[in-house]
Amino acid sequence: MDRTECPICGPGEDWDVFNPFCRACGGPLLFQRTERRRAFRKEARLPLERYADYLPLPSIDPGLSLFEGNTPLLRLGRVSQALGLTVLAKNETQNPTWSFKDRGTSVAVQKAVAMGIRAIGTVSTGNMAASTAAYGARAGLRTVILVKEDTGPEKIISTAVHGPTLLAVHGDYGGLFRKSYDLGRKFGIYFANSTDPLRLEGYKLTAFEVYEQLGNKPPDALVLPVSSGGHFIGLMRGFIELKADGLISDLPFMAGVQAEGCSPLARAVDEKKRTFTRFPHPSTIAQAISNPDPPGGNAVLSYIRTYGGTVLAVSDGEMLEAQKRLSEHEGLFCLPDSAAALAGLMKLRETSSLKSGETAVLVLTGSGLKNLHLAGQAPPAVVRADLDNLDDTLTSLA
Amino acid sequence: MDRTECPICGPGEDWDVFNPFCRACGGPLLFQRTERRRAFRKEARLPLERYADYLPLPSIDPGLSLFEGNTPLLRLGRVSQALGLTVLAKNETQNPTWSFKDRGTSVAVQKAVAMGIRAIGTVSTGNMAASTAAYGARAGLRTVILVKEDTGPEKIISTAVHGPTLLAVHGDYGGLFRKSYDLGRKFGIYFANSTDPLRLEGYKLTAFEVYEQLGNKPPDALVLPVSSGGHFIGLMRGFIELKADGLISDLPFMAGVQAEGCSPLARAVDEKKRTFTRFPHPSTIAQAISNPDPPGGNAVLSYIRTYGGTVLAVSDGEMLEAQKRLSEHEGLFCLPDSAAALAGLMKLRETSSLKSGETAVLVLTGSGLKNLHLAGQAPPAVVRADLDNLDDTLTSLA
Repeated sequence: MDRTECPICGPGEDWDVFNPFCRACGGPLLFQRTERRRAFRKEARLPLERYADYLPLPSIDPGLSLFEGNTPLLRLGRVSQALGLTVLAKNETQNPTWSFKDRGTSVAVQKAVAMGIRAIGTVSTGNMAASTAAYGARAGLRTVILVKEDTGPEKIISTAVHGPTLLAVHGDYGGLFRKSYDLGRKFGIYFANSTDPLRLEGYKLTAFEVYEQLGNKPPDALVLPVSSGGHFIGLMRGFIELKADGLISDLPFMAGVQAEGCSPLARAVDEKKRTFTRFPHPSTIAQAISNPDPPGGNAVLSYIRTYGGTVLAVSDGEMLEAQKRLSEHEGLFCLPDSAAALAGLMKLRETSSLKSGETAVLVLTGSGLKNLHLAGQAPPAVVRADLDNLDDTLTSLA
Repeated sequence: MDRTECPICGPGEDWDVFNPFCRACGGPLLFQRTERRRAFRKEARLPLERYADYLPLPSIDPGLSLFEGNTPLLRLGRVSQALGLTVLAKNETQNPTWSFKDRGTSVAVQKAVAMGIRAIGTVSTGNMAASTAAYGARAGLRTVILVKEDTGPEKIISTAVHGPTLLAVHGDYGGLFRKSYDLGRKFGIYFANSTDPLRLEGYKLTAFEVYEQLGNKPPDALVLPVSSGGHFIGLMRGFIELKADGLISDLPFMAGVQAEGCSPLARAVDEKKRTFTRFPHPSTIAQAISNPDPPGGNAVLSYIRTYGGTVLAVSDGEMLEAQKRLSEHEGLFCLPDSAAALAGLMKLRETSSLKSGETAVLVLTGSGLKNLHLAGQAPPAVVRADLDNLDDTLTSLA
């Protein structure tokens, strides 16, 4: 049986797929580390196989994978120069459904199939919906996706193509999140939501990849957007396990970035509180990180108290500026919600958290193609021209 | 100096970046093979470095790369079973700008920078525009992108984000293609268009990766969409070089797939002609493969005469059905223009070209996110529901 632990309260009960929350604090659970001997399997093709010793899976079926992970870590030349740091981007937009969510979904689906569960589901505003629908289709599982009623057409379409049961639900999103677990137990559906313990196991592997890509070293800082807290917790846990195994001596400074218009955790950090308060009236363009009541929020705050790190907030304008910088200077087109990581790093550089020459990794979580209308806020700069006088047009633009 | 050769006419002149066409037949040129000793550099991280011995580049600057290539080769379980073959997908949608074009752009940009060229360009209907703009931005080059005046907003936006000079041009597309080389010479812009010799070098690497991913073997067949012919020629050339080096003894059966509504090469193959005729009044949903006058068309026909293979045509309906099959059964969401490869394979299976149990590789060229409105042709299957009676809704759907 799989034993769990809570990042805040410590060791907990056996894992319950239909209720993966701490009985004491209500926060998300992690799987306990097993005591077996671990090693990276360097000859494996899939990250799931490479890091299998670190995963609570009895075996890996490559047929269920879409070959997620193994994403590039790119040096950002001009950003590095401008900030006096070595800045690298972990480009999660090159995953099979073009967001980091695939890493979590892949582990959840492996476990579901191993346990004989026939249906998986998720509650999502977008990237996780498409990811879960894709992996559910690949595995031949029944898939139930619950989205908010106002979810945009791009996100609906890129989920619906995989043929899930797709419900657009009227009602409070936090309530929908909680309700999904009741539905799961009643209908036998494994709802792998944002802070699901197996998702967090998948996000751990990003930490392992970064460590290996840097030549078996952690970065000095790792900056990523934070919404539910699941991604942050998973990455942190990955570095904690590397340290526990003696592979690294220091954890990176972990910085989570939220949108000013929905920043319950940044506010709690500012106010030095142990627990956050639901953020009233969220308002931001960054839908993928606009959770006012993040289920993993208090665990993130607890990790920061114990290991250092921070959560800070950036404005929509700063995110859009960072998105532009990444696309115009580095050739990387990600969501503003992802570019928040760069906006956060620029703020962090003004503090004393990072010293010149240190190495910072930004996690770019989702492809810019997932919200083109936003990128197109300012009308795109297109010049109309005629084939017959292209020479003149180009001369005038030179 | 780089010497060229024509796939049809044989060895040619020195390479001219502003006029990379055969003086005899007008077709696209390839670089001549150098006679140096070659090997795969198995420890390299970038495909450009791994296969550097096979590329006409003096050196590789990883700082210009976005870490293109190294894409998964996935077994398609249900498709394999249905067709009685081992069918694998080479998933080029996981490239940095989510299409195979990045492989070609990366090589062109390496060469441009090595030669001191300060501006690159392309004439494109979509994927190549975004790719060229992204790599141009990364390299700090001036970038000039020429698109048709009716190019859709998604493709405009995903190109414009990288800050190129972007011209939407009124006039004949074939004329624009030819005109671009005049502009290139006049303004010092390297127009790396669809059949550019350096692009073809990049596409060769897909053949090398497939060979290695299959355990140092070619597939029995390789199926891919064909428009300009550049991708087909590059892949074919890759396998020809593997054979010339004694690494494989047989070339795969190469099958190009076109849309029935724009199938000049399939028609020429049907009619056993050495050269194709411009396709009148193209009409297909598959814009990425709707070139009625493909510049590499006769070279494709020549390769097929010499080495075997074919070009066949599929209907828009067959492409959409194949797109649905890939997304609902395999979890892969690609453009219908890419799913054409599966539609083509299904046709091919009805002929005697493939025997039961043989291995076929489909090249999935571009992400479905690049044309969501098309995927949404049939309204997506979404059920409206209310949080308060989700139980009843799910019961009714079970």
